[in-house]
Amino acid sequence: MQVVLDRTGCIPLWRQIFAEIRRNIVNGMLGAEYRLPSSRELSEELGVSRNVVMESYDQLLAEGYVYSRSGAGTYVCAGLQAEYKVSAAADSRESAAKKKYRISFRTGIPDLSMVPVTKWLKAYKNVMHEAPDKVFDYGQPEGTLELRQALAAYLGRVRGTAAGPENIIITNGAAQAFNLLAAATAPEDYLLCENPLSCGLLFTLEKSGRKIETVPVDEQGIKTEMLPSQAPRLIFTTPSHQFPTGSVLPAARRNELIKYAESHDAYIVEDDYDSEFRYSGNPISSMQAMHPQRVIYVGTFAKTLLPAVRLGFMLVPDALRHQLLAAKYASDISSALPEQLTLAELIRSGAYAAHIGKMRKLYREKRNLLVAALEEHFPGSVQIAGDSAGLHLMCSFRGISIDDNMLERIENAGIQVETVSRHAIGAEQKGKYANALLFGYGNTPREDIGKGIEVVAKILKSR
Amino acid sequence: MQVVLDRTGCIPLWRQIFAEIRRNIVNGMLGAEYRLPSSRELSEELGVSRNVVMESYDQLLAEGYVYSRSGAGTYVCAGLQAEYKVSAAADSRESAAKKKYRISFRTGIPDLSMVPVTKWLKAYKNVMHEAPDKVFDYGQPEGTLELRQALAAYLGRVRGTAAGPENIIITNGAAQAFNLLAAATAPEDYLLCENPLSCGLLFTLEKSGRKIETVPVDEQGIKTEMLPSQAPRLIFTTPSHQFPTGSVLPAARRNELIKYAESHDAYIVEDDYDSEFRYSGNPISSMQAMHPQRVIYVGTFAKTLLPAVRLGFMLVPDALRHQLLAAKYASDISSALPEQLTLAELIRSGAYAAHIGKMRKLYREKRNLLVAALEEHFPGSVQIAGDSAGLHLMCSFRGISIDDNMLERIENAGIQVETVSRHAIGAEQKGKYANALLFGYGNTPREDIGKGIEVVAKILKSR
Repeated sequence: MQVVLDRTGCIPLWRQIFAEIRRNIVNGMLGAEYRLPSSRELSEELGVSRNVVMESYDQLLAEGYVYSRSGAGTYVCAGLQAEYKVSAAADSRESAAKKKYRISFRTGIPDLSMVPVTKWLKAYKNVMHEAPDKVFDYGQPEGTLELRQALAAYLGRVRGTAAGPENIIITNGAAQAFNLLAAATAPEDYLLCENPLSCGLLFTLEKSGRKIETVPVDEQGIKTEMLPSQAPRLIFTTPSHQFPTGSVLPAARRNELIKYAESHDAYIVEDDYDSEFRYSGNPISSMQAMHPQRVIYVGTFAKTLLPAVRLGFMLVPDALRHQLLAAKYASDISSALPEQLTLAELIRSGAYAAHIGKMRKLYREKRNLLVAALEEHFPGSVQIAGDSAGLHLMCSFRGISIDDNMLERIENAGIQVETVSRHAIGAEQKGKYANALLFGYGNTPREDIGKGIEVVAKILKSR
Repeated sequence: MQVVLDRTGCIPLWRQIFAEIRRNIVNGMLGAEYRLPSSRELSEELGVSRNVVMESYDQLLAEGYVYSRSGAGTYVCAGLQAEYKVSAAADSRESAAKKKYRISFRTGIPDLSMVPVTKWLKAYKNVMHEAPDKVFDYGQPEGTLELRQALAAYLGRVRGTAAGPENIIITNGAAQAFNLLAAATAPEDYLLCENPLSCGLLFTLEKSGRKIETVPVDEQGIKTEMLPSQAPRLIFTTPSHQFPTGSVLPAARRNELIKYAESHDAYIVEDDYDSEFRYSGNPISSMQAMHPQRVIYVGTFAKTLLPAVRLGFMLVPDALRHQLLAAKYASDISSALPEQLTLAELIRSGAYAAHIGKMRKLYREKRNLLVAALEEHFPGSVQIAGDSAGLHLMCSFRGISIDDNMLERIENAGIQVETVSRHAIGAEQKGKYANALLFGYGNTPREDIGKGIEVVAKILKSR
């Protein structure tokens, strides 16, 4: 049985599971009398809560796709299969195709039409013609010295970080950095996160098997007065543009967080994912610069260049370096060498910084279009947060109650938006953001922004 | 303190740690009175046994680089530091440089001078000019459909595997496949391995925190009559060319292994790393073809094309697919898209198969040169195993006792060879292979093979 879940869209997971199983039944992949996995098994397999699976099974039962034998499981009903069995390949294509949106406000994605292809290809080609032993062999787990040197100099200049090449580890995007950090903790350690936080990050941390505790955020980021007395091993935070709320952590809280880490022998993971794109106010220096031996700085090229090459990095304190290198080696030996060397060349030549400068202008323009459209279509009823930086902003709507039906209508209109609540943990925090939506604008064409908001406004105001 | 270990060479780990710490003391990175980490701490950090660290500390103590205060740790002695403090960057270069060998018989590495650069670049360039949404975005955790389709067809043809694109997961080399497989087991599960086995694989599996049991191998591969009664979750095996001994698992043992897995609800991980290069005898079909729902087939492009792009794959039974996809997503979301699409194009066009055919001829020639050189320099005293396939062979020497001193002299002569015992677990198995060496020939230039064996022979026969 093939269940493809889209964890980036706004359709609730139970509904996606329901639709996927129904699809498998109708296309004949699951024949009559096929026994579905138990809700416990499927929840483990898919990495979702058991309640979510049970809700989808209830719906399948209610709509007559399956029946249950008491104490013996859930079975596919007969007579539902379409005449033909589609090929698995066509089937996969279908799942992929159904995720196409007419207009997408997906978060955390740069403008893919602006990837500097020509410059990349030129550097890549030069790299591939260097000495075979340098480019084609396995690399070192920490990454190539070329990239680490270029990056150390660049980050020191633009982010004020304090780290030499020997404290940098190249990873497959920020995601792998989080995975390695969690993997390098002991089973009895626990991880502390902001709430809400990126549901992708949460998924990665949960898979590590470590216990997770959360601290709520407010308009100023993580509420440091609520830090727990029992010491966590790692504290995951997004100080320069909290995900998803967009708040900026003020200096006083940064100090408190560092003091807390120091006195509890914990480490702060500074996820600086959006810091390159700042549109107003002073640049905020990194927490890593404040205390390089207590802060692990995580960055990615997914948002400054493109996600597809899977390159990111972390700046690590001396005390953690060996453990993290061992975790990286055990994970996949090293990241791809030709792409590391290509990136090093783009950073050294200044092409990377120039690209970011150009994109910052473009994203500011898109942000302005988005803010103007929101104010036009929701006069006096929208509160915008997090628009001073990054590739998305958060909208809270007054006098509008957003429900599943509205979200489904937005989806059916071909528009992709994200709820804030899907990034929140627990009923209380989910409730707090029940009327908030996220609008990413990185990869949204300028001409789609106004059109998309117009459609969303019609649906949200239609009752 | 920076300790760079070379897990692929033949210098014992304790000696490497000793040399690295000495280097750090002499270059001033570790000043006088610096307190070294405890042997327990350092062994954890480096992922080596505590005995190994203790041995290196004893040596430092004996040579007067450190002194110990009873019950208070180990400290760096004064007056040993060179005048200047080398920069960390220069330091890293130095470590990298010292790993250069004049002649290398490293195992598991293809001929890097033969990478089909022009074809790769042409396909890569075409891919990078496809639609931005297709090439530049995050990919799916299972990999692109293009590559999975091309691979399913290719593997079915050449390896007789039974898997559609929906049962393939693209990984960052075989290493990541092993990491994900171990990560997807439960903490109480245990893993069963061959002994000896690749020390890189062992490192990855140990890092998962799962318990590991071993079964010895003989001239016919894993000794199936010694399979334990308590069921493991995963059984790691290399049936087509056992690493490192080179034996081929006969049909009867394959059957027994599969029956065992079936009756114990375990899964077999068939690491088919070397199967593309077979020089004599009939091609051996994969175990996956015998029982696709009990066998996970792991392959890599590191040995057929190049290690640097970090691409591999696994064919997975339906029952494990979701868990493994979740593990891959949590690990790094997806593998790099441009390189997946490039590879798909090379497989589809037949360029990949043609390259393998060409390389098979070249490797056969190198193998013949190596066998001839061994027989010339060790007449009547060498027994060669595993030379019918792959990129390395195993030599057992009669009447020669290989010791650390000989290995160091080989190393000092600029020649890289590997012992078999470093891939073995436990004194008994290590002892069994005490007189055996591995000679890889994939990346050894033809003209170096005879020269290298001549030098090794002189050293081995010199007392």
